[in-house]
Amino acid sequence: MVGPTRFMNLYACFELGIVDALRKEAGLTAAELGALVGAKPDAVEQLLYLLEKERFVARDAATGGYTLDRLAEVPEADLQRALTFMGMIKTGMLRQLYYLADSVTTGSVVGLKEFYGFDGTMFEAAAQVAEVRAAWGPLARNETASVYPWFFRSFDIPAGARVLDVLGGTGLGAVMTCQLKGSPGLRVTTFDRPALEAECLRTFEAHGLTDDCSFVGGQVLESLPEGYDVLLLKHFVDMYDKDDVLTILRNAHRALLPGGRIVVLAAVYPEDIGDAGDYQADFFPAYILGCVMGRGGLQTVSTYRSWLEECGFEVTEVSAKEPAEIPADAIINRVVISATRRS
Amino acid sequence: MVGPTRFMNLYACFELGIVDALRKEAGLTAAELGALVGAKPDAVEQLLYLLEKERFVARDAATGGYTLDRLAEVPEADLQRALTFMGMIKTGMLRQLYYLADSVTTGSVVGLKEFYGFDGTMFEAAAQVAEVRAAWGPLARNETASVYPWFFRSFDIPAGARVLDVLGGTGLGAVMTCQLKGSPGLRVTTFDRPALEAECLRTFEAHGLTDDCSFVGGQVLESLPEGYDVLLLKHFVDMYDKDDVLTILRNAHRALLPGGRIVVLAAVYPEDIGDAGDYQADFFPAYILGCVMGRGGLQTVSTYRSWLEECGFEVTEVSAKEPAEIPADAIINRVVISATRRS
Repeated sequence: MVGPTRFMNLYACFELGIVDALRKEAGLTAAELGALVGAKPDAVEQLLYLLEKERFVARDAATGGYTLDRLAEVPEADLQRALTFMGMIKTGMLRQLYYLADSVTTGSVVGLKEFYGFDGTMFEAAAQVAEVRAAWGPLARNETASVYPWFFRSFDIPAGARVLDVLGGTGLGAVMTCQLKGSPGLRVTTFDRPALEAECLRTFEAHGLTDDCSFVGGQVLESLPEGYDVLLLKHFVDMYDKDDVLTILRNAHRALLPGGRIVVLAAVYPEDIGDAGDYQADFFPAYILGCVMGRGGLQTVSTYRSWLEECGFEVTEVSAKEPAEIPADAIINRVVISATRRS
Repeated sequence: MVGPTRFMNLYACFELGIVDALRKEAGLTAAELGALVGAKPDAVEQLLYLLEKERFVARDAATGGYTLDRLAEVPEADLQRALTFMGMIKTGMLRQLYYLADSVTTGSVVGLKEFYGFDGTMFEAAAQVAEVRAAWGPLARNETASVYPWFFRSFDIPAGARVLDVLGGTGLGAVMTCQLKGSPGLRVTTFDRPALEAECLRTFEAHGLTDDCSFVGGQVLESLPEGYDVLLLKHFVDMYDKDDVLTILRNAHRALLPGGRIVVLAAVYPEDIGDAGDYQADFFPAYILGCVMGRGGLQTVSTYRSWLEECGFEVTEVSAKEPAEIPADAIINRVVISATRRS
């Protein structure tokens, strides 16, 4: 019951600049903080009770001055990453979650309709609504910076291969494939909605990769272009329900040459959903159903394995990040599943 | 970070009727539940992951059927009380909290303006906005049923006393004073905004108490009528900042006859704000500042004691509910503070 209040109480202390003020000067009182951030001292004191309780800040009973306690130990980069995530939760989720049940029954993100008059997914909204883009953009950039290098280290691409980056957006995955997996004769095709073609081609041009990369427009649930050695499915299988994932995997099977390989990047639930140390079940169902897609959701590795087998693939490797590489505040547990076209 | 999602994921399972369906029939699958509640099986499965994780429900891996686990042990009355509270959090808080920082800087409930075009406190909004009243009404009724009988057991009223129920609303406190503390000559006055007079007088009439009870209209921060033996301050001192509480207590001092008594019912923070078993700091600052008043907040007993002393009172008794009387899910810790006019 206290989840929403805890979240916003903490985030408001950052939004108001209370934490920043204490970082610059230790020992400020509620009256001094109030004057700095434009709030009544009483309200500052109230908001700081939770941070005192959690020992994020400490209050000197004699002077009434506050200092950073546990928050002082958090490295700036970690703090900024957490704040980016919290900003997304506030703007992209808090209000939208009010409509979670409606989103589930209609299979659409009702919150986007209510708050932005937008009919579609969060990804589509981010392309058109400034506030959504502002909340999601920094997160997407963090994601790219922290996940993509690891993803591309997790598998090999044979020299001179033909690669299809399925739902490759505006071409960043294709560019990174060339940069990190380059070989003579390598060709990468970005497949996505036709509306993204122009921006994607600009990306290729900006990186001097017009000879190596191309764009094919289409709908992933209808069909994929054929004749590829490697298909990349980065971060989107959890945005579809089972029947659609199976359709995509069957389309992928047809798109691959015999012996070709599919590489799936996905967040996954632990095999034991009761694993108390894994917070994905606490976050993703409400996030994906209520804020992003109105459908879909994470699966376990074993579920993806069985779906891949059902669609004519054999899983050859599953790799996860080294625990040491995962920040303590991370909610998401991603894996890379490689599978070969069996028949 | 997962607070808002955990809250709405759980509540949506009740809203959609998934829990009710499992209460009526154990062993239903996601497909059967989906058909019953009008949602895709995939979405039902996703929402139930969190409930599985928390062992609220269990899923039979062989049949895919769900049964209530820990939720089966919760008595119906406890569940209904928790759902009433959760309904209030959803309607009255979840979206409004988005504006917490704005509410703090403006000293007003910005969420009520944004969602209902309403300029005022949640109490005022409940009188005029059907949705707010629907969310708060049942909570207020639960409150009355569980708190008032205990409150009135916690102190004595001398026979034939003159009692002033400060901010007594539509007269319920006056009626209960007569019913539970009646004595020959007892007279109770309800003091509140003049706009409440008509409804208050109707309450007295409905209970046959027109001879015993009366109404005086006014503003609590300006002055109170004088010449009383006992003043009741039920549940509102935490809705004001310190300067206003001191004003109210000074007005109360003047309203009392020499030797008269003030009885304050209030939720209080623990003396050690770091007390991990007390959830009030997790809830009340964001609730009162962002959803109810835009100002105010709970204090500790020792703070109220010092404020009472500053205003010419001597605290004679502080009583709390017996722990056995407090439900395990209760966030609020209320006390009754009795104090005598010292000079």
